[in-house]
Amino acid sequence: MAQVTLDELNRMDQRAFVAALGDIFEHAPWVAEAAHNARPFPSLNALYEAMTAAVRGAGDGRQMTLINGHPDLAGKAAREGTMTTDSKHEQSSAGLDRLSADEFAAFHRLNNAYREKFGMPFIVCVRRHGKESILRQFERRLGNDAATERDAALTEIFRIGALRLDQRVTASDRLRVHGRLSTHVLDTHAGCPASGVTIELFEVASSGEPHLLSRTITNADGRTDHPLIAEQPIPIAHYELRFGIGEYFARQAVAVADPPFLGIVPIRFAVAEPEAHYHVPIIVTPWSYSTYRGS
Amino acid sequence: MAQVTLDELNRMDQRAFVAALGDIFEHAPWVAEAAHNARPFPSLNALYEAMTAAVRGAGDGRQMTLINGHPDLAGKAAREGTMTTDSKHEQSSAGLDRLSADEFAAFHRLNNAYREKFGMPFIVCVRRHGKESILRQFERRLGNDAATERDAALTEIFRIGALRLDQRVTASDRLRVHGRLSTHVLDTHAGCPASGVTIELFEVASSGEPHLLSRTITNADGRTDHPLIAEQPIPIAHYELRFGIGEYFARQAVAVADPPFLGIVPIRFAVAEPEAHYHVPIIVTPWSYSTYRGS
Amino acid sequence: MAQVTLDELNRMDQRAFVAALGDIFEHAPWVAEAAHNARPFPSLNALYEAMTAAVRGAGDGRQMTLINGHPDLAGKAAREGTMTTDSKHEQSSAGLDRLSADEFAAFHRLNNAYREKFGMPFIVCVRRHGKESILRQFERRLGNDAATERDAALTEIFRIGALRLDQRVTASDRLRVHGRLSTHVLDTHAGCPASGVTIELFEVASSGEPHLLSRTITNADGRTDHPLIAEQPIPIAHYELRFGIGEYFARQAVAVADPPFLGIVPIRFAVAEPEAHYHVPIIVTPWSYSTYRGS
Amino acid sequence: MAQVTLDELNRMDQRAFVAALGDIFEHAPWVAEAAHNARPFPSLNALYEAMTAAVRGAGDGRQMTLINGHPDLAGKAAREGTMTTDSKHEQSSAGLDRLSADEFAAFHRLNNAYREKFGMPFIVCVRRHGKESILRQFERRLGNDAATERDAALTEIFRIGALRLDQRVTASDRLRVHGRLSTHVLDTHAGCPASGVTIELFEVASSGEPHLLSRTITNADGRTDHPLIAEQPIPIAHYELRFGIGEYFARQAVAVADPPFLGIVPIRFAVAEPEAHYHVPIIVTPWSYSTYRGS
Repeated sequence: MAQVTLDELNRMDQRAFVAALGDIFEHAPWVAEAAHNARPFPSLNALYEAMTAAVRGAGDGRQMTLINGHPDLAGKAAREGTMTTDSKHEQSSAGLDRLSADEFAAFHRLNNAYREKFGMPFIVCVRRHGKESILRQFERRLGNDAATERDAALTEIFRIGALRLDQRVTASDRLRVHGRLSTHVLDTHAGCPASGVTIELFEVASSGEPHLLSRTITNADGRTDHPLIAEQPIPIAHYELRFGIGEYFARQAVAVADPPFLGIVPIRFAVAEPEAHYHVPIIVTPWSYSTYRGS
Repeated sequence: MAQVTLDELNRMDQRAFVAALGDIFEHAPWVAEAAHNARPFPSLNALYEAMTAAVRGAGDGRQMTLINGHPDLAGKAAREGTMTTDSKHEQSSAGLDRLSADEFAAFHRLNNAYREKFGMPFIVCVRRHGKESILRQFERRLGNDAATERDAALTEIFRIGALRLDQRVTASDRLRVHGRLSTHVLDTHAGCPASGVTIELFEVASSGEPHLLSRTITNADGRTDHPLIAEQPIPIAHYELRFGIGEYFARQAVAVADPPFLGIVPIRFAVAEPEAHYHVPIIVTPWSYSTYRGS
Repeated sequence: MAQVTLDELNRMDQRAFVAALGDIFEHAPWVAEAAHNARPFPSLNALYEAMTAAVRGAGDGRQMTLINGHPDLAGKAAREGTMTTDSKHEQSSAGLDRLSADEFAAFHRLNNAYREKFGMPFIVCVRRHGKESILRQFERRLGNDAATERDAALTEIFRIGALRLDQRVTASDRLRVHGRLSTHVLDTHAGCPASGVTIELFEVASSGEPHLLSRTITNADGRTDHPLIAEQPIPIAHYELRFGIGEYFARQAVAVADPPFLGIVPIRFAVAEPEAHYHVPIIVTPWSYSTYRGS
Repeated sequence: MAQVTLDELNRMDQRAFVAALGDIFEHAPWVAEAAHNARPFPSLNALYEAMTAAVRGAGDGRQMTLINGHPDLAGKAAREGTMTTDSKHEQSSAGLDRLSADEFAAFHRLNNAYREKFGMPFIVCVRRHGKESILRQFERRLGNDAATERDAALTEIFRIGALRLDQRVTASDRLRVHGRLSTHVLDTHAGCPASGVTIELFEVASSGEPHLLSRTITNADGRTDHPLIAEQPIPIAHYELRFGIGEYFARQAVAVADPPFLGIVPIRFAVAEPEAHYHVPIIVTPWSYSTYRGS
């Protein structure tokens, strides 16, 4: 779907407005329809508030219809190809389109248990989670009561909508839906930033091979030209950064052991707040390093 | 072979002495025979010096026979079961009895190339090396000239003999053939040693799964009751220590993220000096850690 | 007073025993007299327990006489030379014999206020405190009620007695009255202990010049041949360690700035537990360092 | 002297141009006069190049006159009030107007020795040095030969001119004459920036009291709102940053010792490159800290 500016939206009649934003909430163009009345919007956040207010103000019936309009995770809709395009992209971002048979069975079992207990599909903003985190959410939320789960479903629907809206609409403000993962390599042997260090970022699951997300190299400031992750939530998951420290010092005029004490330096950490900034630097000599969650 | 004390050796006649030490040098009881003349030995190091002096003082012919008495690495002798017991143990310690087909082929190719170039078997003290380090040694030494390689073969034979002698003979001194790998976990969140931290030590190859060497847990001092490696050379190889930091802080009354920023903390490093002390500690909070080669 | 062994004490009659230990508790030979009945003592700790039990079991009158037998801190007895030798040494160890006029006035004022409120001298085991810590104790304890203060006085008398007893008697066990301050310099530029580093230890007060306690130099292990403080409580106080890092790296073949980024590295810290082990190392390159309370 | 834009300068006739820039080089309006011919200047750096080229292209006589037009450091001109305003400000910035009698005598002696050897005043860009660094420069340069010293004098004159020019002229580019000193406090006990930490910056001489340069407090990012030093060279000198870590953790809900292990944390370092960026952060828990020269 093409991007649209907030100014354009503010000038649209209801039909055009619903055509532009009718799919922000899954199968629920009535949300955009209701929000249209609140024009003009001074900011993207104001537009978002108007849309969520429309959902909150709708009756129980409409809310349940909205909830029930969402597909099962990794479920029948996916296999039968009846999901909306947005839903498809969202589910594939978390690797839900690459499940093993065991994982597929786990999702199937949890979907059924959830539906049986709550009479609605399990909804989660999958862009905020890795595969393992979704399963953990699933198991936790199965233990909730119905009222808590209904609130949880709406919270997740709002998160899904916020991400779609932020991508769809250009405005001078942004919704607070993005996190950032960055790094920095400082060479305290020479007292300067370490440039030319190769960095690989993996997502690490409790079983199976690490999944390579990106590969980059440090610039003259010891940083990467672009953040490792930006313009999206950082999925709640375990990660591993691998720094090519051995090769870096081999290129400097530094006497090291053979093989060098430090070759590939792995830093493994978990992200728990998808919208936060995680700065994970490494301060390194041929014989030592330290890391921390910076900001 | 049973242990013997230096005192007992000093009182033995030549026959008994050769029976006790005749196999320290492979298929070369004449080394013990010659060393017997230098009794009594004030120290184990003096005995070792006498044996290596006997080899150094022997003619070219005897030295070549000594060299040629050694089996090929991962070679025919191994498959046919004609190796001495010591050689078998030594080769299995480096994992040479668990080679993949590709690795076996590499050894076979290198053995042949080496024999063709130098007319003798490739000799290396395998207890000082991991599998990959042996292959690297092999390739490097293939580039040497004959005189250099003959010196190298004797150096390795002396190392093999030193390890065997140190295990065989009890004395008030030791040969300097052992390294030590130790660790320590310090909790700078609470300002005290971290006790109860699980630690796993792996050998890591450039391909294939890490190989678990040992699993232990820190005591009240944040140390392990026994060194991770001791009473042997530390094979030249890459290692990974994995510290169960997430579980440790979960047991303390510490507010952390969910999942915690640090779960399993891996420290990957290489050993280049098998007879040295490597102290690889970790100084850790829920949000940071540092490590270094200490002593 | 000469040292005596536990064995000798166990064989003494009461007169000799009281001659040997009668002054462990100030002006109170009756404590030793009572403890004599509990011979033989299997350990120094058992002897100490017997003496403190004798004090605890004495009536109020005797306890008050014991308490009142102690001199004022920095008080009249000191100026008139009527203190016991032990008391003199103890008070000088905390610098109470080198008070400024203002400090002397503060002690005088606090002594009078304390005596007026509690009808007894303020007692504190001065070997466990720096001058500022004693003043802080003084002010805090002035706020207590009489019963609390009487317990506090006995606790301090027991600490004074324990230190005297531990110095007087040789046994196979020791009383737990000593702390230890140690350090270590690790060079992570070269990956080895830093030897030849000059270290100065100062006591630092909130005003006035730092007071040099000792000067030493690191050995081949990057440690000092003897702990910086040992065989005594570490007085509760602020300290500063100054490491001659600039000169150390100037002696290595290390390219540094002119002047070097790090010259004298000061580490300032406070001791709160006089009987604990404080290990305060520094891990250093020409461009970075870290320190922590180790163990 | 009022600021002027590069555009304005480019449009000036020679008389106005010399009025605006005639004092950039001490008592040498002929430099501006010569540079005027090279108008228009595309950048401030181009203007600076034109002025230094004019000096380099002048004959020996003019250069020596330029050099001799500079006052002695802390010398007679200062006492008699005949220095230019710029020179006065420059000399006071290094504390040369606050010399002790001994320091004044040292400058007097060095000035005389220098004049006697080289027949010209000792010239140094004092804004780039602390008092001790100037004396060290003085002593080193006294050992040079005449040709080296004449080059050194011109280099320093160019540095003085660059600083004056950069302050006088507004352009879209800047001369590379400024350094920056910044810091950052990261709390790895809580995993977040440390806000509200008081920071004091001192200049530290080998004797005498540290001289307080500024006092500030960290903001929500653990940084200071403004760099500690910016928009000027950082004088070559020793500095000490003092961080109020004890008070910071006392305000958090953190169990610490009494007194806390860390109270005021001093970081002492030297600046050797006045035009560089020195980032000197501290990463801290109640029991540990680390620092490094970052960027």
